Amino acid sequence: MGDFDFNNNSHRRYNPLLDSWILVSPHRTQRPWQGQQEKTAGDALPSYDPACYLCPGNTRITGEKNPKYESTYFFVNDYAAVKLDQPDYVTPQTSDDDVKSRLFKVQGTKGNCFVICFSPKHNVTLPLMSVPEIRVVINTWTDLYLKLQRETAFRYMQVFENKGASMGCSNPHPHCQVWCTENVPTDPAKELTSFGAYKAKHNTCLLCDYLSVELAEKSRIVLENDSFVALVPFWAVWPFETMILAKSHVASLPDFTDAQKEDLAAIIKTLTTRYDNLFLTSFPYSMGIHQAPIKPVGDEHSLAHFHMHFYPPLLRGATVRKFLVGYEMLAEPQRDLTAEQAADRLRALDDVHYSEKST
Amino acid sequence: MGDFDFNNNSHRRYNPLLDSWILVSPHRTQRPWQGQQEKTAGDALPSYDPACYLCPGNTRITGEKNPKYESTYFFVNDYAAVKLDQPDYVTPQTSDDDVKSRLFKVQGTKGNCFVICFSPKHNVTLPLMSVPEIRVVINTWTDLYLKLQRETAFRYMQVFENKGASMGCSNPHPHCQVWCTENVPTDPAKELTSFGAYKAKHNTCLLCDYLSVELAEKSRIVLENDSFVALVPFWAVWPFETMILAKSHVASLPDFTDAQKEDLAAIIKTLTTRYDNLFLTSFPYSMGIHQAPIKPVGDEHSLAHFHMHFYPPLLRGATVRKFLVGYEMLAEPQRDLTAEQAADRLRALDDVHYSEKST
Ligand SMILES: O=P(O)(O)O[C@H]1O[C@H](CO)[C@@H](O)[C@H](O)[C@H]1O
Ligand SMILES: O=P(O)(O)O[C@H]1O[C@H](CO)[C@@H](O)[C@H](O)[C@H]1O
Repeated sequence: MGDFDFNNNSHRRYNPLLDSWILVSPHRTQRPWQGQQEKTAGDALPSYDPACYLCPGNTRITGEKNPKYESTYFFVNDYAAVKLDQPDYVTPQTSDDDVKSRLFKVQGTKGNCFVICFSPKHNVTLPLMSVPEIRVVINTWTDLYLKLQRETAFRYMQVFENKGASMGCSNPHPHCQVWCTENVPTDPAKELTSFGAYKAKHNTCLLCDYLSVELAEKSRIVLENDSFVALVPFWAVWPFETMILAKSHVASLPDFTDAQKEDLAAIIKTLTTRYDNLFLTSFPYSMGIHQAPIKPVGDEHSLAHFHMHFYPPLLRGATVRKFLVGYEMLAEPQRDLTAEQAADRLRALDDVHYSEKST
Repeated sequence: MGDFDFNNNSHRRYNPLLDSWILVSPHRTQRPWQGQQEKTAGDALPSYDPACYLCPGNTRITGEKNPKYESTYFFVNDYAAVKLDQPDYVTPQTSDDDVKSRLFKVQGTKGNCFVICFSPKHNVTLPLMSVPEIRVVINTWTDLYLKLQRETAFRYMQVFENKGASMGCSNPHPHCQVWCTENVPTDPAKELTSFGAYKAKHNTCLLCDYLSVELAEKSRIVLENDSFVALVPFWAVWPFETMILAKSHVASLPDFTDAQKEDLAAIIKTLTTRYDNLFLTSFPYSMGIHQAPIKPVGDEHSLAHFHMHFYPPLLRGATVRKFLVGYEMLAEPQRDLTAEQAADRLRALDDVHYSEKST
């Protein structure tokens, strides 16, 4: 039968961050698609939309009016998933052999949610912003991290962006969200546990070690500058999933130098430009930052290694996405092309946005 | 501030099956929705579609012709994610202090994939089939379990159905899939681990214990017959997520009596009918069966407790779904209404399908 061929034979790969497996079925890319077609972004948007609740000067649903902001602007989410004030949840008195308390565990959760508009312009996205403009976004994230650290007792600050209607984004105005909570949420908590276990066993950082192999092998690297690498992780689930990884062991945004933040802005711009250039469409994704808790416990700060995850759904063009459904929801995630094939495709693309080409 | 109110205050609930948390933000149901609208199922379908590759007598993409089948019919998936034959993956010789082998773990995976057409009729779904017809589907699952157990070395058989275009289903002809693999996939494996840990600590079954509390409290129970319960799990993620749970500790389909299989058919019909009646639409979902591995190792067979998960995306009507994106993909799942509110809604519905009402 010949040798095992990663480009043709089914295999599972292990995700050491989340301690889980994914199924890779590379021959499945040949499958014809007769299912749902995604809508594409559609007509060009105006730079100001009087009906948009995020545009400068407009009134939000609460009656509050946005200032005429001129760069990045943030405010408290009008429909926050967690709130500053609510009664404390008091765990009922129970004994250890009480089935109810074993199996019905609850925690009350306070927190705060913010919306950060990247730009006053309704019709831009990260790849269409300049590096200095993205730098302001990074400064806003950093300042918010420090402010929450100073002024609240919250443990974790989750920054994320949902881009595109197919990723549940209800407003195309360029923005991200920050949800900050009393607890470290499931995934960042699992990562910290993995970092701790790895450190205890090998006395080094999991992601530093991982990066050293990736930089040597090069097959999954998409982009690189002095401070960051963008790569398709070995265990990627989404077709063109990537991670932006700090090259040095830096825990959180405030720990970066100005030069490093400049490099972060640059790699975000280039990566998102490549994404748009892949299928000549405004590429939908959810992305987010994993970094040290704002209120670390024990050695959490020194364990954390700053990185960003990009989870984009498109598989074969602007209108055909990967669905993570049935098998993926019940058994384990499955992908069609390999991480190396995805990286090849992303590496081959141009750094000039398709909409800005002069030809 | 008064007492903690589960219907208004944010809290986290623990999922003891998968050892993870979910965030519940019940006040968030008041949020207006301006995002993507789902398409509804659209025009009535014919009972036979000459262009459908699953209808009786039609030719599939491989050139193979379906027989003129008259009830449930199954065949090997033409685009299987795992295959019967491929070269073995031989793990490279490595030493323990080799970073590559620590962090880049791979397994080759053989297996087989099947498609099971529930009915020759193109335009039915489970709620529109009779209990005896659903009974034939259950017999087919059972026979396949026994056949794979007899004839293969595969460890696990994952049955799942993707229903509706928004759940990645590319053909409305009523069907499910079976993917069977050399390994137990991530989620059923985690459940078996949870069952084992619970058993070691409390000398009883996690789901038997869980069920006893649910039957006493009743607030999350949707349906019940002699052998099964349908409930919204305490830790539900999807808005109207449910589980069908065997009332007695039964490991797998072949372990059920005929009367129990009859009850399983009946509860599947009623639950899916309620789903359709909720928003007067053919309710999309992914569902699947978790049961004992076909080739159990150690005490896996005695640990397993048969159940089915239903993961439906709709939140507020036929066209508004819940998106599990940004925060959910990066941090942890978040839901808007509580499990108890969802169960109330499902409990209040009629057992006659809206399309079959005579008024
Ligand atoms: O096999 P199908 O129905 O064509 O495909 C569907 O279900 C599979 C199993 O859940 C998924 O991997 C695919 O992304 C989805 O489109
Ligand atoms: O807050 P938004 O953008 O209105 O809502 C979107 O992102 C949230 C956080 O990922 C999700 O919980 C919602 O389901 C999604 O529609």
